[in-house]
Amino acid sequence: MEFRIIKAPSQGAIDILMRRKGSARTETPPCMEAVGLVQGRMIEMVVAADIAEKAVGVTVEDIRGSCPQNMILLAIFGDTASVESALRDIKNKAEEGMDIC
Amino acid sequence: MEFRIIKAPSQGAIDILMRRKGSARTETPPCMEAVGLVQGRMIEMVVAADIAEKAVGVTVEDIRGSCPQNMILLAIFGDTASVESALRDIKNKAEEGMDIC
Amino acid sequence: MEFRIIKAPSQGAIDILMRRKGSARTETPPCMEAVGLVQGRMIEMVVAADIAEKAVGVTVEDIRGSCPQNMILLAIFGDTASVESALRDIKNKAEEGMDIC
Amino acid sequence: MEFRIIKAPSQGAIDILMRRKGSARTETPPCMEAVGLVQGRMIEMVVAADIAEKAVGVTVEDIRGSCPQNMILLAIFGDTASVESALRDIKNKAEEGMDIC
Amino acid sequence: MEFRIIKAPSQGAIDILMRRKGSARTETPPCMEAVGLVQGRMIEMVVAADIAEKAVGVTVEDIRGSCPQNMILLAIFGDTASVESALRDIKNKAEEGMDIC
Amino acid sequence: MEFRIIKAPSQGAIDILMRRKGSARTETPPCMEAVGLVQGRMIEMVVAADIAEKAVGVTVEDIRGSCPQNMILLAIFGDTASVESALRDIKNKAEEGMDIC
Repeated sequence: MEFRIIKAPSQGAIDILMRRKGSARTETPPCMEAVGLVQGRMIEMVVAADIAEKAVGVTVEDIRGSCPQNMILLAIFGDTASVESALRDIKNKAEEGMDIC
Repeated sequence: MEFRIIKAPSQGAIDILMRRKGSARTETPPCMEAVGLVQGRMIEMVVAADIAEKAVGVTVEDIRGSCPQNMILLAIFGDTASVESALRDIKNKAEEGMDIC
Repeated sequence: MEFRIIKAPSQGAIDILMRRKGSARTETPPCMEAVGLVQGRMIEMVVAADIAEKAVGVTVEDIRGSCPQNMILLAIFGDTASVESALRDIKNKAEEGMDIC
Repeated sequence: MEFRIIKAPSQGAIDILMRRKGSARTETPPCMEAVGLVQGRMIEMVVAADIAEKAVGVTVEDIRGSCPQNMILLAIFGDTASVESALRDIKNKAEEGMDIC
Repeated sequence: MEFRIIKAPSQGAIDILMRRKGSARTETPPCMEAVGLVQGRMIEMVVAADIAEKAVGVTVEDIRGSCPQNMILLAIFGDTASVESALRDIKNKAEEGMDIC
Repeated sequence: MEFRIIKAPSQGAIDILMRRKGSARTETPPCMEAVGLVQGRMIEMVVAADIAEKAVGVTVEDIRGSCPQNMILLAIFGDTASVESALRDIKNKAEEGMDIC
C-alpha cells in the first residue's frame, strides 16, 4: 500500500479525483482542507475503505482505476489532523488484519 | 491467494462490494456480521468459490475486477465463525486440490 | 499452464463459469460430474482447446478473461475419469507440440 | 516470440480463432490442414504478419488480444509444409530485421 | 516517475496529447513554447498535478492512459523556463511529500 | 524503446496498421516504400512522435494499443532512406532529451 497527503489541494487536483469517483454521491465533501490518498490492490482497498469509514471527521471516496469496477485509489477528505489520523489507522490496522487466517 | 476478514463491516465497505458483484441476485446476504475477502487469479477463484459454496452459513459473491469478465475477488458474508471457517477451508483445500494432475 | 479439478462442482461455481463462456452454445454440458480448469496465455489455450476437443467424453468451453476477446481459462466438463484424462493429455502434448519450430 | 503448430485442428479450436479475428474477411481460409500460431508484442507481430503475407500457400489472420486494438496472436492457415515454412521464415527473419537501426 | 521536456513541440505531438486529455476544457493552453511530460502511477500523478497547478505560468492537462479513468501522463504547457521550473518542483516535492505518513 | 523497419510492406501488414491508427486523417501516406516501427511507453512515444514529425520526407501515425487512448506503437512511412534517418533521429535524441530535468 502507498500513502500520500495533499494539504490545501488545488482545484485541478480535486477535479481529477471527482471525475473518477465510484459513488453516486453528488454533494462535495464538507471539509477539503487536506486529502489523503491510498493506493493498493483491490482486497487491500476494501479493508482500507472500511477502516477509513470508521474514522471520525473524514469523507471517503473510492477512485476508479483503469476500468469502472477496479478500485485502485482511495481519497480521504477532511481537516489535516483527521486525514493524517485516518491514514495512520489504515497503515496500522491493515497489517494486523491479516493474522486471522 | 490473499485473505482478509472485516468484522462488522461499515456501510461504505459493503457498498463498494455490492456495486461490483457478478451475480444478478438482488437480495442482500442474510447475515453480514463479517465479510471474508479472497483475492487471486481466476482459476484459483473458481475453486475457492466452489469450496465456499459447500461451506455452511455463508453467502458467496464474486466481485468483478478490472473488467466485468475477470473475477479477481471473492466476498464471503456470514457470522464471524462461519466466515473464518470458510476462509480456513479455502486455504487448506486449495493446496490439496492441485495433486490430481 | 496451471491445472485444477473440481469434483461435484457446486451450482455457484458452475454459474461463475457459465456467465463467462465464449461460445454461443445454449445447452449445458451433458455430464458435469467434474470440471477441469486450465489457465495460461492465449497461444497455449488454443492448443489446449484443440487437444481437449479431440479427447473423448468431455465438453470444452473457453472462459473469457478481462475482455471478451481474451481467453485465459478453459473449462472441461465430463465424468471424473474423462476430465482427468483430458487434463493429462493437455499436460503431455503441450510440451511436445513445441519441437516443430 | 512464441510458436505453436496444430495439425488437423478441431472445429472447436478453429471457432475460438475465428471468433476473435481482426480482419473483416468473411470467407474461411482455403486450406486448414494445419494452423501455425505466433504470439508476441505488437511491434513483433506487425513484422511477422508481413513475413507471413510474403510466404506462399498460407492465409494470415491477426487474432485480437485483450482489447480489439491490441494484436497479440497471429494464426497462419495452410497445408502443413507451407505453415511450417512460414513459421521458420518468421523465426529467422525477425531476428535479422533488427540490425537496421 | 519519469520526466521529459519537448521544446517547440510539433503540431503532430500536440494533437496526440490533445486527443487524449481528461478535462473538458476547450481552449488551447495560452503558451505552448514547451511541453513537460510526467508519467507515473495514479497516486503520484494526483500529487504531481497538485504541485504543477500551484506553479506559475503553466497550464496542466492529465492525459488518459489505457482506459479513460486511469491517468498515467501529465502534460504541462508554458514557456520553457516555467515548464522546467514546474518539473523541478514536482521532482523535489514528490519525494518530500512522503514523510507525513 | 524498440525499433523495426519493414521494406516494401505487404498490403496485409499495412492493413493491420491502418485499422488501428489514432488520427482521423483519411488519405494514405504519399510514400510507403518502407515503414519504420517504434514501440515504447506513452511518454517516450510522444517525444518520438515529435522528433519524427520534425524529420523530412516521412508521414507519422500513432497506432492504438489495448484501448483507444493508449498509444504504444508509432508507424513512420516514407522512402527507405528517410525512414531509416527518422528512426536514427529518434534513437539519438530520445536519450539526449532526458538531461533537462
